Amino acid sequence: MGEVGARLVIETDMVIIGAGPVGLFTVFEAGLLGLRCHLVDNLDKVGGQCAELYPEKPIYDIPAIPSCTGQELVDNLMRQAEPFGPQFHLGQQAEKLVRLEDGRFELTTSEGQVFRAPVVVVAAGAGSFVPRKLPLPGADAFEGTSLFYAVRRMETFRGRDLIVAGGGDSALDWALNLHPLAKSLTLVHRRDEFRAAPDSVQKMRELVASGAMKLVIGQITGLEGEGPMLSAVAIKDAAGEVVSLPANALLAFYGLKMELGPLASWGLGLERNLIKVETEAFETSEPGIFAIGDIITYPGKLKLILSGFHEAALMCQKAFKYCHPDEKLVFRYTTSSTDLHKKLGVA
Amino acid sequence: MGEVGARLVIETDMVIIGAGPVGLFTVFEAGLLGLRCHLVDNLDKVGGQCAELYPEKPIYDIPAIPSCTGQELVDNLMRQAEPFGPQFHLGQQAEKLVRLEDGRFELTTSEGQVFRAPVVVVAAGAGSFVPRKLPLPGADAFEGTSLFYAVRRMETFRGRDLIVAGGGDSALDWALNLHPLAKSLTLVHRRDEFRAAPDSVQKMRELVASGAMKLVIGQITGLEGEGPMLSAVAIKDAAGEVVSLPANALLAFYGLKMELGPLASWGLGLERNLIKVETEAFETSEPGIFAIGDIITYPGKLKLILSGFHEAALMCQKAFKYCHPDEKLVFRYTTSSTDLHKKLGVA
Repeated sequence: MGEVGARLVIETDMVIIGAGPVGLFTVFEAGLLGLRCHLVDNLDKVGGQCAELYPEKPIYDIPAIPSCTGQELVDNLMRQAEPFGPQFHLGQQAEKLVRLEDGRFELTTSEGQVFRAPVVVVAAGAGSFVPRKLPLPGADAFEGTSLFYAVRRMETFRGRDLIVAGGGDSALDWALNLHPLAKSLTLVHRRDEFRAAPDSVQKMRELVASGAMKLVIGQITGLEGEGPMLSAVAIKDAAGEVVSLPANALLAFYGLKMELGPLASWGLGLERNLIKVETEAFETSEPGIFAIGDIITYPGKLKLILSGFHEAALMCQKAFKYCHPDEKLVFRYTTSSTDLHKKLGVA
Repeated sequence: MGEVGARLVIETDMVIIGAGPVGLFTVFEAGLLGLRCHLVDNLDKVGGQCAELYPEKPIYDIPAIPSCTGQELVDNLMRQAEPFGPQFHLGQQAEKLVRLEDGRFELTTSEGQVFRAPVVVVAAGAGSFVPRKLPLPGADAFEGTSLFYAVRRMETFRGRDLIVAGGGDSALDWALNLHPLAKSLTLVHRRDEFRAAPDSVQKMRELVASGAMKLVIGQITGLEGEGPMLSAVAIKDAAGEVVSLPANALLAFYGLKMELGPLASWGLGLERNLIKVETEAFETSEPGIFAIGDIITYPGKLKLILSGFHEAALMCQKAFKYCHPDEKLVFRYTTSSTDLHKKLGVA
């Protein structure tokens, strides 16, 4: 381990970008070969689209699992990867990738975490989930000072006149969590219906009734203030009337969207936002960088989770050679190999 | 449906050779595209190697299933295939394959069952399981008349002096089932230990003690008789002494071995007993004949069940075009497509 500035440099075998189902299964396949993995994901939890977009929705086409929800799939993949102790680095984006003189890669995340590894695996699905931003000109100027799309530290909002915008679970949960800290809290949503847990909605209504927070139905149409400090938010109500609501902090939850993000600039041979790979080891045009799952393209490619599993298994064979150039890899089966049973903790 | 001789000709979309895990999952993937499947397997049950060689042994590398036995895997794949009503033709070997003038294939099994279909899928694993035969010169001459390796009809053995050879479940089960029909029954095994269910072994011992059947410990070293009719079997005991045991029927259970079988002669471009395929649709050198699972080879191929699942999914896309040349296939997800939900019976 080395140190860059104040942060440790993590040295490992494989850095996996994306902690969705395919990234998680890569941990298992790599683990069978004795390779250690660190995973980076922009979301603050594992599971990618499965956990974010359809945690409760049944999936029917995972082989030998007639039906499971997105979250169950993720939970089972986590259990399967567990014997190999994957390390997760969540809520941060893989930002910068350079090749070192010794042939390894150095990957730096948006949080400044640095990894060095001989193998990088891009398992980023359709890209990073990033928050949908306020579609107002000039909104950028307030971002990070008085306009936020996520809560990194609750203390940021202590004693402030806070507006929380949105009608889903994130908006409701944070409104409930932050109102005791904030000087005042107003929830703004474009209609009086919420796509959030009924229990949260009920609690919010009680707090509004008791005067502990305010609820305004309308749409944010403008931000007022000097430089990076917000002073008020313009809101148009259902009748078309615009009111100005004083506030020095705005927390907007308008959902997530997919973005390829920084990896689009890594020179990996993109074809319509997909990475072209060969089908022997799913390696990109850059030796040592592999790509698997929904982010790749090759003749016949289907965006199925089960194909990502296959790609992960084949990819690890070649990744092993980068990690242990002088060792011969012997192919073993989990049903019969006592060596694999030891690794799996079932010996 | 047409008729050949006394047997119906089955017309379908896809004939799958091999009812192992990969063949079973093909039914599901084909079913999602509206294609009907018939499966042929030489074993008398579904599941292939998983069900035959390790029904009780845990498998750890099926994605999102941290551990399951071979039989559990097969049972789950059967449940998943169920909505698509696969038809099984077990205990028979795919024997003859010819291309018809209309471009379709005609497949005939060892039992005389005839199929006509635009697509044939070889998912035959390491080949057919066939019984290991008596390693004695001239044994062939008795086969089918007084030497047998399986029981097709119990009546064949009524009133005969029968020797059952072997020490596993098949030998024990058939000895227990056939002794009431046979005139006499002798179980012959090379040592006084049995790899069979303890309950069956105990029942056998009771029948031997009561005189209802005999047990001889020794090895069969010769067959005596005229033409196809056996008159006695020579058995060498532990002390090296050879005794001649009168018998006119011998049923030998010496386990199963793998054999590529008739499909080796179908001109599919074999390479060391494996079928070469491309990786876009896993089609063989013969258009309309696909091959998937352990029987195939391509750059990077791993003999993993999870790879067979991927191969099945991609293969079905092209198979669809042979079945419906004029229709456009729209790719849909099981999580979101109401059309697929109807097919799966979950709408």
